[in-house]
Amino acid sequence: MAHLITNCSFSASPAVKTFSGSPGYCCNVGQLQNSKSSNLSLKSSFKRQKKSYVTCASAAVQGQTQTPLTGSQEASGHSSSKPKKVMVIGGDGYCGWATALHLSNKGYEVAIVDNLVRRLFDHQLGLDSLTPITSIQNRVRRWKSLTGKTIQLFIGDICDFDFLSEAFKSFEPDAAVHFGEQRSAPYSMIDRSRAVYTQHNNVIGTLNVLFAIKEYSEECHLVKLGTMGEYGTPNIDIEEGFITITHNGRTDTLPYPKQASSFYHLSKVHDSHNIAFTCKAWGIRATDLNQGVVYGVRTDETAMHEELSNRFDYDGVFGTALNRFCVQAAVGHPLTVYGKGGQTRGYLDIRDTVQCVELAIANPAKPGEFRVFNQFTEQFSVNDLAKLVTAAGAKLGLDVQTKSVPNPRVEAEEHYYNAKHTKLIELGLVPHLLSDSLLDSLLNFAVQYKDRVDTAQIMPSVSWKKMGAKPRTVSV
Amino acid sequence: MAHLITNCSFSASPAVKTFSGSPGYCCNVGQLQNSKSSNLSLKSSFKRQKKSYVTCASAAVQGQTQTPLTGSQEASGHSSSKPKKVMVIGGDGYCGWATALHLSNKGYEVAIVDNLVRRLFDHQLGLDSLTPITSIQNRVRRWKSLTGKTIQLFIGDICDFDFLSEAFKSFEPDAAVHFGEQRSAPYSMIDRSRAVYTQHNNVIGTLNVLFAIKEYSEECHLVKLGTMGEYGTPNIDIEEGFITITHNGRTDTLPYPKQASSFYHLSKVHDSHNIAFTCKAWGIRATDLNQGVVYGVRTDETAMHEELSNRFDYDGVFGTALNRFCVQAAVGHPLTVYGKGGQTRGYLDIRDTVQCVELAIANPAKPGEFRVFNQFTEQFSVNDLAKLVTAAGAKLGLDVQTKSVPNPRVEAEEHYYNAKHTKLIELGLVPHLLSDSLLDSLLNFAVQYKDRVDTAQIMPSVSWKKMGAKPRTVSV
Repeated sequence: MAHLITNCSFSASPAVKTFSGSPGYCCNVGQLQNSKSSNLSLKSSFKRQKKSYVTCASAAVQGQTQTPLTGSQEASGHSSSKPKKVMVIGGDGYCGWATALHLSNKGYEVAIVDNLVRRLFDHQLGLDSLTPITSIQNRVRRWKSLTGKTIQLFIGDICDFDFLSEAFKSFEPDAAVHFGEQRSAPYSMIDRSRAVYTQHNNVIGTLNVLFAIKEYSEECHLVKLGTMGEYGTPNIDIEEGFITITHNGRTDTLPYPKQASSFYHLSKVHDSHNIAFTCKAWGIRATDLNQGVVYGVRTDETAMHEELSNRFDYDGVFGTALNRFCVQAAVGHPLTVYGKGGQTRGYLDIRDTVQCVELAIANPAKPGEFRVFNQFTEQFSVNDLAKLVTAAGAKLGLDVQTKSVPNPRVEAEEHYYNAKHTKLIELGLVPHLLSDSLLDSLLNFAVQYKDRVDTAQIMPSVSWKKMGAKPRTVSV
Repeated sequence: MAHLITNCSFSASPAVKTFSGSPGYCCNVGQLQNSKSSNLSLKSSFKRQKKSYVTCASAAVQGQTQTPLTGSQEASGHSSSKPKKVMVIGGDGYCGWATALHLSNKGYEVAIVDNLVRRLFDHQLGLDSLTPITSIQNRVRRWKSLTGKTIQLFIGDICDFDFLSEAFKSFEPDAAVHFGEQRSAPYSMIDRSRAVYTQHNNVIGTLNVLFAIKEYSEECHLVKLGTMGEYGTPNIDIEEGFITITHNGRTDTLPYPKQASSFYHLSKVHDSHNIAFTCKAWGIRATDLNQGVVYGVRTDETAMHEELSNRFDYDGVFGTALNRFCVQAAVGHPLTVYGKGGQTRGYLDIRDTVQCVELAIANPAKPGEFRVFNQFTEQFSVNDLAKLVTAAGAKLGLDVQTKSVPNPRVEAEEHYYNAKHTKLIELGLVPHLLSDSLLDSLLNFAVQYKDRVDTAQIMPSVSWKKMGAKPRTVSV
């Protein structure tokens, strides 16, 4: 893709002992703790062929030393059973980072696989997280210094199968949580190049993960992030992945019909079909988490230190509805409701994202099983959210206005919506519902950071209908 | 893709006047008829950047001259209304070639867009068509010499949007028939590289066609070849694209659930979802032809001259069931039934393929309409076909044996199957059903060419379960 420049090659220093003996591809953060340097031990060299790049992060934080622990010693402090190894693909992103820390905290041995392209999107579109975030290397180093827990880091592109193979062979995951996709509907609707990028990146990346599991970790449980947007807004109840249909006197349980409404959402539909097939054909065990819109930013782990802060997107491309409204309210910008505002979706707190993923890992799918969970806790319309934020703002003395703007998307603005979401509850999910106090704290959080808000980012800038084939600059 | 070598650059001779004035991208075969050369007027030069390649075919056939006709003069002989321009993407393939000739014969102005990669697959896998086929350039030249009708030729890859854009701008199609995909399920299941190639090529190619229509020919009707394999083998009747579901007291008509069973079939499912979305979001007019298994080889047009012969695949990768059985019977090889042989599918004669496509073009979808037709005429199980070929063989004095071989695919071998196929009939399709006489002639055809059969190609060589991530050689 012309707008992505990700070909870069690093090899680890010869002094770095790699975790699995695989040369030059990964290093265990915990094994570098005696390094004198507070910075990454990296040497860069261009290989003969353009290859994936892998960085190797030193665990030593300036002025601190840690008692060495092996991976298994470390995990044994949290669980008497054999520790589970979880690969978090896309572990530098909004949901991925929070999940990686949560799993590490719970005693799982965690490796993050990420090409960091989400950070590149910000550079290219002139966007920034409301919260300052530090480098992934600093993040895992800080985590190590605070908790003694190691998170391995594989920096590279899962569309590069050689890279992904090395990561799988080296880490040998019991579960792979796959957040590693371009995850914005508006981004996928900017222009042809980004539509093609989104579908290529997401579909081929997931195919590669499936092949890596088949080839190197056949027992590995794939926990894949789908989206509630795969279902669209049908006029009947939405079930969890499958629906039993009686038609002309015969009955079958079939995949729930899909009606996605952006090239991004479509990429997740394609993934779901591909994964379902490999479960049947190869016996892959997979859980497809059809996630709703995530709000919030803090989890127990990201709140531990400012260097563990999660990103918080409020812009028209990556910002999600409730988070965006809180930022708009904080800076005195009218809440931008798209069209009539009757668009209803499932929502969840990011603390439930990490909880749900852990529940899926702890209760894996059986070999050959393709399992779908609808991962959200409550339904709201956009108008519902606007009213909630307006009321919360009033308590803070903010005069929150709401403004209907022309809907940049092609979607029903008034529709039936009733989506089931019981399977994760049955596994033990205890939801963090959107209480007044939670909303108050989210709004307070936005107010705390309001000096960092770039108001030019707030308005929707991508139109579904006006999308063209030619490269487009997103106005800021 | 490592196994594809398609980067090659040709530019048209400066002497060639292009059809639309677009420099060096396409030429009208009819405009070169005074050329003295019997060969293509081609000059090759490598451009600064690797670009799509476009060849420019001369219409002159050795020893023949034709009276010049303009495109509109030509078409006016067949229709009193303004001629319709049809772009046949994948027009060098089995269905595409027959369709291009049929449409040309019916008075449509036809352009073939093809990168000829199907011929490369044969080279790479060591396969060959049972029937000798000549180059696409010779094909269109021969067609011109026999009928006076011009078929334009755009040689290039639709995954290259610059190339596709030029083709659209130059030809300005009223309809685009899209056969231009990797169309073999076994090919897509050889190894990871080919699975990824199939999904990338098919999905991105179709996305590009959609963007080209939106950008350059908004009224152009997309006639896209899907497959009955998108539906799988559900235990309820298969409808044409959509099903009305009553669930918990509410009713909606939704896309029919998809259960594809190879990376190829899945690529068509992905296409269908993408196309449906663009109809809704952009107002694209599209017909998705979910085609069954095609048999036969001769159409009225391909039978006119040996240089117009269609390809006939009988190998384990590209050969379809009935065609393969006829070749097996002709050479005394047992008919290879996969597993129990109860696998039931929709079938049609290639003469009905061309008829159905013409009906779809002549009765276009409305702007914004996503229309799905199930394109087949009869259902057969594999065992049904084996019995029919055995009986037809006996009449020719052939002792036809049937042998069950381990099923290389993962599929139900005994199942319910009842697929609707009335919409094309309602538009006027008069089917060529699989009569005894038709089967006799198909078997006779195979016997006629039996000396060209390579028996090593007959057996299935691709296993769904054994598919691996590593590059694989298909044994021959």
